[in-house]
Amino acid sequence: MENRYASRVERLRAIMRQRGWDAVVITGSDPHSSEYPAPRWKCVEWISGFTGEAGDVVVTLDHAGLWTDTRYFIQANRQLEGTGIELHKTRVPEQVLIPEWLSKYYFPDDEVVVAVDGLCQQVSAISEIEEAFASRGEAELRVVSVPDLMNLLWSDRPAIPAMPIISLGADLVGESRLERISWLRESIGQKGCDAILLTALDEIAWVLNVRGSDIDYNPLVISYLLVTAGEVNWYVKKDVFGRYDSDTADTFAEMEDDGVNVLPYDEIDIALAGQTYWERLLVDPSTLNYSLYSTLKAYSQEGALLEAASPVPLRKAVKNAVEIEGMRECHVEDGVAMEKFLYWLETTLRERPVDEWEASEKLTQLRAQIPGYKGDSFETISAYGEGGALPHYVTPRANAPVLQPHGLYLNDSGGQFMNGTTDITRTVPLGPCTMLEKEDYTLVLKAHIDLAMAVWPRGTAGCQLDALARGPLWRAHRNFGHGTGHGVGFFLGVHEGPHDIRQNFNRVPLVPGMITSNEPGIYREGMHGVRHENLYLVVEDGSNEFADWLRFEPLTYCHFDTAGIIRDLLDADEIKWLNAYNQKVYDMIATRLTPEEAEWLQKKCQAI
Amino acid sequence: MENRYASRVERLRAIMRQRGWDAVVITGSDPHSSEYPAPRWKCVEWISGFTGEAGDVVVTLDHAGLWTDTRYFIQANRQLEGTGIELHKTRVPEQVLIPEWLSKYYFPDDEVVVAVDGLCQQVSAISEIEEAFASRGEAELRVVSVPDLMNLLWSDRPAIPAMPIISLGADLVGESRLERISWLRESIGQKGCDAILLTALDEIAWVLNVRGSDIDYNPLVISYLLVTAGEVNWYVKKDVFGRYDSDTADTFAEMEDDGVNVLPYDEIDIALAGQTYWERLLVDPSTLNYSLYSTLKAYSQEGALLEAASPVPLRKAVKNAVEIEGMRECHVEDGVAMEKFLYWLETTLRERPVDEWEASEKLTQLRAQIPGYKGDSFETISAYGEGGALPHYVTPRANAPVLQPHGLYLNDSGGQFMNGTTDITRTVPLGPCTMLEKEDYTLVLKAHIDLAMAVWPRGTAGCQLDALARGPLWRAHRNFGHGTGHGVGFFLGVHEGPHDIRQNFNRVPLVPGMITSNEPGIYREGMHGVRHENLYLVVEDGSNEFADWLRFEPLTYCHFDTAGIIRDLLDADEIKWLNAYNQKVYDMIATRLTPEEAEWLQKKCQAI
Repeated sequence: MENRYASRVERLRAIMRQRGWDAVVITGSDPHSSEYPAPRWKCVEWISGFTGEAGDVVVTLDHAGLWTDTRYFIQANRQLEGTGIELHKTRVPEQVLIPEWLSKYYFPDDEVVVAVDGLCQQVSAISEIEEAFASRGEAELRVVSVPDLMNLLWSDRPAIPAMPIISLGADLVGESRLERISWLRESIGQKGCDAILLTALDEIAWVLNVRGSDIDYNPLVISYLLVTAGEVNWYVKKDVFGRYDSDTADTFAEMEDDGVNVLPYDEIDIALAGQTYWERLLVDPSTLNYSLYSTLKAYSQEGALLEAASPVPLRKAVKNAVEIEGMRECHVEDGVAMEKFLYWLETTLRERPVDEWEASEKLTQLRAQIPGYKGDSFETISAYGEGGALPHYVTPRANAPVLQPHGLYLNDSGGQFMNGTTDITRTVPLGPCTMLEKEDYTLVLKAHIDLAMAVWPRGTAGCQLDALARGPLWRAHRNFGHGTGHGVGFFLGVHEGPHDIRQNFNRVPLVPGMITSNEPGIYREGMHGVRHENLYLVVEDGSNEFADWLRFEPLTYCHFDTAGIIRDLLDADEIKWLNAYNQKVYDMIATRLTPEEAEWLQKKCQAI
Repeated sequence: MENRYASRVERLRAIMRQRGWDAVVITGSDPHSSEYPAPRWKCVEWISGFTGEAGDVVVTLDHAGLWTDTRYFIQANRQLEGTGIELHKTRVPEQVLIPEWLSKYYFPDDEVVVAVDGLCQQVSAISEIEEAFASRGEAELRVVSVPDLMNLLWSDRPAIPAMPIISLGADLVGESRLERISWLRESIGQKGCDAILLTALDEIAWVLNVRGSDIDYNPLVISYLLVTAGEVNWYVKKDVFGRYDSDTADTFAEMEDDGVNVLPYDEIDIALAGQTYWERLLVDPSTLNYSLYSTLKAYSQEGALLEAASPVPLRKAVKNAVEIEGMRECHVEDGVAMEKFLYWLETTLRERPVDEWEASEKLTQLRAQIPGYKGDSFETISAYGEGGALPHYVTPRANAPVLQPHGLYLNDSGGQFMNGTTDITRTVPLGPCTMLEKEDYTLVLKAHIDLAMAVWPRGTAGCQLDALARGPLWRAHRNFGHGTGHGVGFFLGVHEGPHDIRQNFNRVPLVPGMITSNEPGIYREGMHGVRHENLYLVVEDGSNEFADWLRFEPLTYCHFDTAGIIRDLLDADEIKWLNAYNQKVYDMIATRLTPEEAEWLQKKCQAI
């Protein structure tokens, strides 16, 4: 039986031969550069079977490759088996990224035609391919942009989603949409622009104070937003007959009241191609798709287009007082759900077996009881033993592995609430642990605590703190292949920039009001995985002659299990931090639990 | 009485008015972008009185400013007093560097004439000024390059130095100059070049295996080196009558034998302007001066010039086995001199007062007894108490402060030897210390040890390790305003790139064979300064499933005084490292000391 994906690649090659294409680049993204695309845009998964969250495919007439990073090597090797598609590793020292690979794959003097779905390609990705060819100066490149290219092959491709849309008031988010639009106009004005095209969905949701559910786990609305001096035009999927659920109808009505024009999604192209009514339009090439960019380039006059970073991500990352209060509140609720879950897990396992899927479902049910719950913030990773060794493990619904009364269970989960977004990982010893499990458990906790205790001078970027978490692992010759921390949205994406904590030379400083995860790990293929993750808020920590100081304040409150700890691997400061944290968890959460749960939690939070 | 520097600035302004110049930019560098220029090129000092190692002056018709970094703020404020020259702070968040400042200083539509000494300006510095004006698109810029511009004012300006030149054999440096030239040709060949112009003096000294003393503390020869496919042309100061000391005569004769043409220094300009005999010449804009660059631009055909990083610094930074062995040997000798010095200091102070200058001279005398000593590697910083608060304190020859039997004495010094270069800082408690002195002493030692104990995966850059040293200081709300570590040459500059350890996003990884200092500090104006500095060699530390691991091996052996330590501020690992290090110092050094000195050292090295 021929492999399904291999035959899809072959069908693509037939089209390539017909049309004279030498290579097709397929991305896992949508027209908005979303990290998690709706099913319609899971083109990489459709052609390769690879379900990881990051990966691009290149198909040539005699090669097919998937480019993905360290997080997904094990998974990709398994999923690509039999497809004929080869894994190209990224985020490794010897990586050869797609632009370089393509430019070296052809002979000098070849004319190479690379076809892409211009809607799903970032401008910057195409520029990188063009630059790679230009810098080698040998093979000549022609990029052909075919919107919805995969339609040629993918007959049952899902439609563009258009789910109900809600509007959030200033009481929930701290600022009205009119205030945010006014800030946006002022901000682009400082760059000499009188208009901006927003293409990233979380930026649009933030500016308009709207949330939807067009993408699983991401409360976003598929749309474009064009803000000019005189108009605010929101291009969003509309029903041709104007039939809407009450939330969407209310939202659209509110928009009318606020002077926001609600226009059909497809009209964005025409709006950019027609007679323009701005002097200078700001577009962000890191999220603008190549198709719209090409339209703009074709119709814009000299100097009428400024390609620059959107001002929204940084402003959105710095939470205001109302957002911070909401985040604090939903994290306490989330902590209660987590503690109830961990209590249920421990007590149930004494009586009967539990599998990874049941555990995952149980936690979702507990979160769902929280007022304002709008869904999980990502697919729960519920992994026992060797499953935990995959940082992005997907728990199977059927025949999920059963939790054993020994070793480590890892649960990485979070919720979307009207007043915030949560993301937490706990690794729990379910009984006796091997020495290696305990060492890994303790060292990762040490790494987490060392970063949590960090103090730093204003102006410091996350990559300049990263070694605080990795240092203790490195000294034990251990490491992990993912970032240490990512920004988190306010009832928005669980991953957001522009800041992060990783080894990436990102210069954006961590400033008060930013939220970041702290999630070091150790993964041992075929054995176990450990990750300890809390969210932290950046707060001020005084000033003196040396600097203005900043530090982290925990948002997440859920105890770290002390049963897995080798005490000698922690120093006095680390133990002090851990005991104080667990005590604070008890103080904040216990009153919201049943007496049995509270008694259990008290034991769990006892100082070591 | 008018300030001497104020009147020099006024004389410059008179010339500016005559010639229609709006601004003059004066650098503290020489035609080779040397960090430490010979006296002839100390133009910033001549016009402003500022003696710091880093600083540029801009004079306009109504403003004069000195741009320098955090290290020199205190010193600059003092030295600029009465000059009318204003301090512009760099390496601070709110910095406005010269290009931006100049571009904003003038009115739109102004035509601004900026005069520079093209010989002492880096190409990249001029580009930055041009870009700043271009990006604002208002005032128009014209750069006028006047070689030796300061000759117009500076009548008793020193001549270009031409000191004796020695040649080092492969037995000392591990490779002959012919091997290095052959490597260089191959290396530039990979970039499509058949010629390279080397302008940085340490690169030239490394390639040709020559050393001189044209610059204090830097064993360099003022020269240019042009390597083409068929020729090696060394442009160096020659005596018109051919009278040379025997070292120089031998060196020049060796060059003849090796096919290196020794040509007059001044002829470099003609060589670059004439009929060229190469296809493509590599020049490094980070060290090429603007004057030579302009010549090349005027005479080179399209595509005949590649502006790229020279391959020499990285190769030079990775020491070969012979260089490493030499560095190890000279560091043991240096450690003996240091221990003899510290013994002398402690015992002498019991009997009579010692001032900072006497201490400095004593140490130089002890180093001078080491075989192969060629001078100090920089001007010794010998600073008691508040003097130590200036990271780049200059010890006065006359009326130097006297060391008191309490508080902290800081000594930062090093030597140039035929088999290597040393750089060490010790901060020594001379008697009772305040709690703050002890805290600072211990925290800086903690920072030093945490970095010294580091293990990291191959591929990691110094800036990704920097937090290991700063973290412990930051947590105590303390910091220092200089880098944590710099590369060190082999009987070459005590500072060399391309790697370093600081908060600068420098992506060059630390690889085996590289040498770096580890020198955290704390400085309290008017009180005291602490710095603990060793040099370390990067070595391999095994491989496993997580990474290829690297670590530091100490080169410097001189005990850290335990009398200043608050033991509770160190954790068990740090204490273990310290005790093992001090023990190793005793084991390596004691046999080379007198019985009295050895007995003293044994006590100093006792475990805490």
